[in-house]
Amino acid sequence: MIDPDRFRNTFETYSDIGRTDNDGLHRLTLTDADIRVRDQFVDDLESLGLDVRIDEVGNIFGRREGTDPNAAPVLVGSHLDSQPYGGRFDGQLGVLSALETLRAFDEQDIDHRRPIEIVNWTNEEGSRFKPALMGSGTFVGEFSVDETLARTDSDGTTVEEALESAGYRGDVECGPRESIHSYLELHVEQGPVLENHDQSVAVVDGIYGMSWLEATIEGTADHAGPSPMHSRRDALVAATDVVQGVRRLSNRYDDVVTTVGELTVEPGSINVIPSEVTFTADVRSYDDDIVAELVGHVESELEAACKREGTEYELEEIWRIKHTEFAESVRTAAREAVEETGVSYRSMVGGAGHDANYLTDVTDAGMLFVPSVDGRTHNEDEFTEWEDAVAGATVFAETVRRLSQ
Amino acid sequence: MIDPDRFRNTFETYSDIGRTDNDGLHRLTLTDADIRVRDQFVDDLESLGLDVRIDEVGNIFGRREGTDPNAAPVLVGSHLDSQPYGGRFDGQLGVLSALETLRAFDEQDIDHRRPIEIVNWTNEEGSRFKPALMGSGTFVGEFSVDETLARTDSDGTTVEEALESAGYRGDVECGPRESIHSYLELHVEQGPVLENHDQSVAVVDGIYGMSWLEATIEGTADHAGPSPMHSRRDALVAATDVVQGVRRLSNRYDDVVTTVGELTVEPGSINVIPSEVTFTADVRSYDDDIVAELVGHVESELEAACKREGTEYELEEIWRIKHTEFAESVRTAAREAVEETGVSYRSMVGGAGHDANYLTDVTDAGMLFVPSVDGRTHNEDEFTEWEDAVAGATVFAETVRRLSQ
Ligand SMILES: NC(=O)NCCC(=O)O
Ligand SMILES: NC(=O)NCCC(=O)O
Repeated sequence: MIDPDRFRNTFETYSDIGRTDNDGLHRLTLTDADIRVRDQFVDDLESLGLDVRIDEVGNIFGRREGTDPNAAPVLVGSHLDSQPYGGRFDGQLGVLSALETLRAFDEQDIDHRRPIEIVNWTNEEGSRFKPALMGSGTFVGEFSVDETLARTDSDGTTVEEALESAGYRGDVECGPRESIHSYLELHVEQGPVLENHDQSVAVVDGIYGMSWLEATIEGTADHAGPSPMHSRRDALVAATDVVQGVRRLSNRYDDVVTTVGELTVEPGSINVIPSEVTFTADVRSYDDDIVAELVGHVESELEAACKREGTEYELEEIWRIKHTEFAESVRTAAREAVEETGVSYRSMVGGAGHDANYLTDVTDAGMLFVPSVDGRTHNEDEFTEWEDAVAGATVFAETVRRLSQ
Repeated sequence: MIDPDRFRNTFETYSDIGRTDNDGLHRLTLTDADIRVRDQFVDDLESLGLDVRIDEVGNIFGRREGTDPNAAPVLVGSHLDSQPYGGRFDGQLGVLSALETLRAFDEQDIDHRRPIEIVNWTNEEGSRFKPALMGSGTFVGEFSVDETLARTDSDGTTVEEALESAGYRGDVECGPRESIHSYLELHVEQGPVLENHDQSVAVVDGIYGMSWLEATIEGTADHAGPSPMHSRRDALVAATDVVQGVRRLSNRYDDVVTTVGELTVEPGSINVIPSEVTFTADVRSYDDDIVAELVGHVESELEAACKREGTEYELEEIWRIKHTEFAESVRTAAREAVEETGVSYRSMVGGAGHDANYLTDVTDAGMLFVPSVDGRTHNEDEFTEWEDAVAGATVFAETVRRLSQ
């Protein structure tokens, strides 16, 4: 049903907006590149004759009416923001699969009873502003609009200021205006499972739960030379002890991943004992009780390391999201679609949070994955073979057709 | 001999230049505050009628003639730059003890055969520009003038640019113009030894040797969620493993200190596996062979950690300085001076590098220490009791009198 050439050309056009020298994508939320890609997206929606609206937190919607004006709509989309020096597929492929689906429906006059709405969610990545899934989380009421607008980036700029100066502070209230029939999102898997099984598409059963933690350790700055080892309170020695402990946590479970992605040292001088270290921990499991247990373990590691080193700590949980199980109705539609296309597929659980997680709070939500070469993502080498992208978009369009009947 | 009130007033005046809210000092080399304190210093030298000269790397000298115009001069001084959010005593107390000595000599018409030169060395701390002891190291030929002028800070500004824009790129050739009789420097101990022994002054026998190392570990950026633990190449896991190893090194020796003071993480996003970590190591011992051994141990730790994690590393030694033994002649003069004043003192070895280290390459050099409360330094809480500062400056002036006969 879809047009692979048009799909690919659109993908290249969008990839040029924020493309890095290494063919990656650097398009942090509401930075110049993100503003330019939003402009392109709005243009494309308008060219399709869609009714475009932008909400208070910058989520962009485009609506194509169905034959039944009173039917609940099917919502489809993903995100156009990227990680720092991230890849071109993460998020963007989902938005453009949805766009190509609408173009195909338009071109081929495909009948659908329900309205179809396409969406680009603001700040899915959580890199510039924390937490991730911000636009969708606000849409479903997980975060209040005020809370979201007041979030700051590392320079202290608020989401509200960034939206205003970008011209993407919309006037539409953020949240469902009506009952939504279903939500479908295509995304790159970002892991190795599909590639290892030589399959092109996954119908996603659910997503891991996770917690994001921020820890600060306070020690005492002193001179690296004349300060005897036994009298030191070195914040970095304690923090590195915890990082090692966080890594070891995953050994105790079979479905757990743990990561420290950020760590900064004060004062950061070669001959000064570090006085303050701030770092994050990201812990995930499909079992929400285990996520809670992991948070406890991180705190125990901090306590033990700080006791050993004589340092103090603070620990804050900045984000917790339960594991998600996607709706049987959407999974069934997707399975039927993929079986009809004859593409090799599997069911699986995903380890990355997606806007679809939050959408389960307000509608029947579901996801499709396409493979990531070497399972790599959140870096410039992220890649998906074009035939897999086309297979995914085809299944996506077929699923939307089913859902919108 | 010295005037304690004048000494203290001068100390307060200088401390106001770059004083922090917490009564510390933030006066990085050739920043605004450092330029202002240099201006003050030059004014004070000129008010004393000294012949002021500034060399190519910004070292500032002031000369007071003795009765014998052909005698080799005695050089006295220290540094006016500080660590980031450092203390008011480190360096400054030595320069101002020398200034007070010259003022006392002037006021009391004290006869001395040899010329006395006072000096403020550029960039002793090594915080803005690496390595430390830059001005004195260039003066003795350890670094070439070109090499020094080309050093950059973290913003890429060169020493040459910083000197030019500060107006402290002098035209006097950097290096001894004549044979120098001796060099004397007073400094805060920066460690706990004098305080623990309730003594006011140390005659310093020598200084630890040290090595400064810079390591980079390269891993692979990937997503913190769907990337299985066993396939990760996490640069921060490897680096924190090394930091723990560097800390453990000191357990194997009785006179060794080891510190990691800087560590930065790329890309530094909460849900991205770190791809690159850069960090420093500072290792010290009074035994130069042990310093060499420690460098080997740091490399072994890197090798082992990177083997475990599948990461790659680079290691660069950015500075090595041998242990220093100060001249018997200067130590004798200092011991005689301190015994004459009746102040309680000891001999000891210091753990911090000082400009006096490099001066041993070109003259008989020596140092006096005064106590640091709680042994603390390189932070805003650095403190020396005023009576100890006065005792130190008194011994300093007496020693200079002896050396300049
Ligand atoms: N898909 C994705 O990268 N989402 C960001 C939230 C997460 O780290 O899982
Ligand atoms: N005294 C002092 O802090 N010097 C800087 C060089 C070193 O780290 O020892």
